Amino acid sequence: MTIRIAVIGYGNLGRGVEYAIGQNPDMEVIAIFTRRKPEHIKPVTAGVKVYPIEDAVSMKNIIDVAILCGGSAVDLPVQTPQYARLFNVVDSFDNHANINDHYHSVDQAAKAAGKIGIISVGWDPGLFSLNRLISYAISPQGKTYTFWGRGVSQGHSDAIRRIKGVKDGKQYTIPVEAALESVRAGKNPVFSPRDKHFRECFVVTEDGADIAAIEYEIKNMPNYFSDYDTTVHFITEDQMLQDHSGIPHGGFIIHTGNTGANRENKHVIEYNVKLDSNPEFTASILAAYARAAYRLNMQGETGCRTIFDIAPGLLSKEDAETLRAQML
Amino acid sequence: MTIRIAVIGYGNLGRGVEYAIGQNPDMEVIAIFTRRKPEHIKPVTAGVKVYPIEDAVSMKNIIDVAILCGGSAVDLPVQTPQYARLFNVVDSFDNHANINDHYHSVDQAAKAAGKIGIISVGWDPGLFSLNRLISYAISPQGKTYTFWGRGVSQGHSDAIRRIKGVKDGKQYTIPVEAALESVRAGKNPVFSPRDKHFRECFVVTEDGADIAAIEYEIKNMPNYFSDYDTTVHFITEDQMLQDHSGIPHGGFIIHTGNTGANRENKHVIEYNVKLDSNPEFTASILAAYARAAYRLNMQGETGCRTIFDIAPGLLSKEDAETLRAQML
Repeated sequence: MTIRIAVIGYGNLGRGVEYAIGQNPDMEVIAIFTRRKPEHIKPVTAGVKVYPIEDAVSMKNIIDVAILCGGSAVDLPVQTPQYARLFNVVDSFDNHANINDHYHSVDQAAKAAGKIGIISVGWDPGLFSLNRLISYAISPQGKTYTFWGRGVSQGHSDAIRRIKGVKDGKQYTIPVEAALESVRAGKNPVFSPRDKHFRECFVVTEDGADIAAIEYEIKNMPNYFSDYDTTVHFITEDQMLQDHSGIPHGGFIIHTGNTGANRENKHVIEYNVKLDSNPEFTASILAAYARAAYRLNMQGETGCRTIFDIAPGLLSKEDAETLRAQML
Repeated sequence: MTIRIAVIGYGNLGRGVEYAIGQNPDMEVIAIFTRRKPEHIKPVTAGVKVYPIEDAVSMKNIIDVAILCGGSAVDLPVQTPQYARLFNVVDSFDNHANINDHYHSVDQAAKAAGKIGIISVGWDPGLFSLNRLISYAISPQGKTYTFWGRGVSQGHSDAIRRIKGVKDGKQYTIPVEAALESVRAGKNPVFSPRDKHFRECFVVTEDGADIAAIEYEIKNMPNYFSDYDTTVHFITEDQMLQDHSGIPHGGFIIHTGNTGANRENKHVIEYNVKLDSNPEFTASILAAYARAAYRLNMQGETGCRTIFDIAPGLLSKEDAETLRAQML
């Protein structure tokens, strides 16, 4: 018997969940719920049914885990507690400032329903958080640095698109190589935003737009660009389509610490990811944590969890004896 | 009240545990047990007492966790179950072929005594295992490669020292850079041992030794060197002392997988460590897992665990609310 998964919200992330579940024979997507018209959605998995989101409640007893694929700003603060009253749920809530509020609201709903909710699952928050925690636990007097990129920032791309005369825009956040090297060398540098990352923009303009004015406006935009070194490339619509339609991302998390009588021994721990598709990778992590949510709930556990609360063995479909023999 | 730690066995690893605990204000080394004469041991922590190993049983009630710092070949198979009858224990057992046997023997002893035993804690087995497991759970159709080094292999150094005419020897295992790059590029290469690592040896000879014969014997030694490209440097005793008295190590664990309708999106997950002192880093990991052992046992849990069974939050001295706010 497979773990029956529902996808709630069907964009890049929801589609990514379908791809991910397709690599896991012990799980199966049995329903997609959408606010759009179901007939407008074409799932990638043959035979998967699409329902209006209102139908979710009627499928309470046949869904083991719902993976919430909405956004953190508006959707998840409402949806995760709402659906935790019906299903075990997993989300990728990434609004750092509100994580504990979200936690408590999901915890209350999930406990009342006897379900498990795992929040803030992804790579950051998520796998990067795990590495921060473990590195500091091992080396509490050391220091962790996080770099993001090379990858597309949706927020910065949107900011470019709002400029007058811009038809399309895409922004890549890129770590400064010298900053990475200085951290790896254990120099414990203090960075300004400009020292750590630079920003590269690709822009398609409307006919007759003032190129120089657009470049100036981008480079001097407060909060988004003015604190960074930024390069702007003007390209054609065809070039945009051909070279910049992916959603790559990545990042580096580097911890350095010292041990020994005089702290003479340096240790560098580095975790990095390089992703052709940010949403598909995030979806793959959500799928693994959906398995953990199901198992915890089968053990009688309820309430909210984060990646910090999940024993890693719960993520794998293999049993403990096999994991010890093959992975340890 | 601090977590009271005992160190059983006092070599490089045991000393490393003292350094590690010194960075963790919630833990304290209160006893070192040794098979040597206690007066021959000088702990690094002021005020720590050294006892003959036979005295451990009498301190059953004042020690929260014993960290076992013996070797995997002879000491730990006996000591870990033996001391799990008295204390919560943590060890760094690394004899892969026997991990499940060791698990069951520690499990039985720890359950009978109402204690927790965490085995095979370190970086490999340990943190590398964790990354293997998580990467395969996220990307089950991908592939993980492990590289070790640059670092000292004790077994290979010992093998050199056994050669006639050799006074001292040290061997470094070094990953082949081109192999790392080929894995990172997602080429899923198939490697012979020679493709992945090479071996660099530093040798001090006795007066009048046959240098050419020694080099030949090293390079052609079955199991240890004949399957690898090996370089041999003959150096003086002073050079050995000055440049090669450390115990550095490190390694890389790289997973590549694909997602998407046609598996067109590649994902690379890399974890690597670069360690000036292999035993001191391992000891730092043991210290963090000692905290987890204590907490699990305080929650009423008993029996054997591995790094796969431990929720990461248990490793940190911070509470869950703080971890969510600061690390997630």
